[in-house]
Amino acid sequence: MSFTSSSASPAGSALQAEVQQFYAWQMHLLDSGEADAWAETFTEDGVFAANAHPEPARGRETIRAAAAKAAAQRAEEGIQVRHWLGMLEVRPREDGSVLALSYALIVNTPMGGSPQVHLSTTCEDVLVRGEDGGWLVRDRQVKRDDLP
Amino acid sequence: MSFTSSSASPAGSALQAEVQQFYAWQMHLLDSGEADAWAETFTEDGVFAANAHPEPARGRETIRAAAAKAAAQRAEEGIQVRHWLGMLEVRPREDGSVLALSYALIVNTPMGGSPQVHLSTTCEDVLVRGEDGGWLVRDRQVKRDDLP
Amino acid sequence: MSFTSSSASPAGSALQAEVQQFYAWQMHLLDSGEADAWAETFTEDGVFAANAHPEPARGRETIRAAAAKAAAQRAEEGIQVRHWLGMLEVRPREDGSVLALSYALIVNTPMGGSPQVHLSTTCEDVLVRGEDGGWLVRDRQVKRDDLP
Repeated sequence: MSFTSSSASPAGSALQAEVQQFYAWQMHLLDSGEADAWAETFTEDGVFAANAHPEPARGRETIRAAAAKAAAQRAEEGIQVRHWLGMLEVRPREDGSVLALSYALIVNTPMGGSPQVHLSTTCEDVLVRGEDGGWLVRDRQVKRDDLP
Repeated sequence: MSFTSSSASPAGSALQAEVQQFYAWQMHLLDSGEADAWAETFTEDGVFAANAHPEPARGRETIRAAAAKAAAQRAEEGIQVRHWLGMLEVRPREDGSVLALSYALIVNTPMGGSPQVHLSTTCEDVLVRGEDGGWLVRDRQVKRDDLP
Repeated sequence: MSFTSSSASPAGSALQAEVQQFYAWQMHLLDSGEADAWAETFTEDGVFAANAHPEPARGRETIRAAAAKAAAQRAEEGIQVRHWLGMLEVRPREDGSVLALSYALIVNTPMGGSPQVHLSTTCEDVLVRGEDGGWLVRDRQVKRDDLP
């Protein structure tokens, strides 16, 4: 499994800082319900796979629609979601892409209520540089800890 | 909203590392009940505003007194508080100050009991350099996710 | 207490990035049940002390055995553990070692169930460079917030 295979080529500090900022920005967009801008953080042919779903979402439009639907549902329920990503390993690869391994917690807070740790997952991303030099997700594999 | 506006000028790795260390240090002080040292991490005229309070706290002395009171109350209740700050975006501004956008979780652990995620918030700081070159909070806006 | 003593010599960004990656890697190993590789992230004479245990674990073999036992128990219970380490202060010392002060949350997810924040702790490490240039734990002091 990638999370425990040898880490021959750890990231330098510049790359690690870039990736950390990318994730902060990406999660701020997601949790603010900015589905369009969120979709733009994936490549045009980006893939979002999860062990909670039988089929991966493929392409920006599918990813955008899924985020918009989730945001609408949370708004209706009066729940503020926060995605926390941490314990991040950044591994540059020879083709210029980056393998980024992390944990994620999803914390839900209902209006007037207490925060709940809704889900614990791992996140395995392949990141590539976009035309403006920033990072984009080409492939994301999310695995919920409560599912096989 | 600042959390989703375009991030034209992301921080370099040196600045990001400085700000991360500043927050770790600042939260260690707060959670250790070091109200005096905590207040010194704000500018003399520092502002601490929160959607949980009708009026912002203005100035070090007010900020110090609020922290001291909270620390005394937690000690009486036998609760250890931990402030976790994460998903940090650091944006340098032209005047040399820094806009720092983050999420915060407040985790409370009662003596002999289990940790509870007490609050989930956003934190929007304006940081400025102090005389010794370190960072200080000039303005903090904390918004609890459970409040409008 | 170390968490609030003056931080005269904060880490540069390169060192901080190295230490962050080390912790991500180390926790990925621990949570994947890789007891052998986990033990290799301590020095041969490494010490793991905790306020939950009367005696510190001394040396890699003891540390390995404790991790293997815990991993077997979690597997039997069907629990996925995630160690989150954050609010990290990295302080280089004159002898080339590093004092690393952090918070840790242990999040347990039972198969088919919801994640629980099981424990909140502080972690105080002395890190030293290994022969391959990577970091190793020479001394770890873990203090659970729910215990005196």
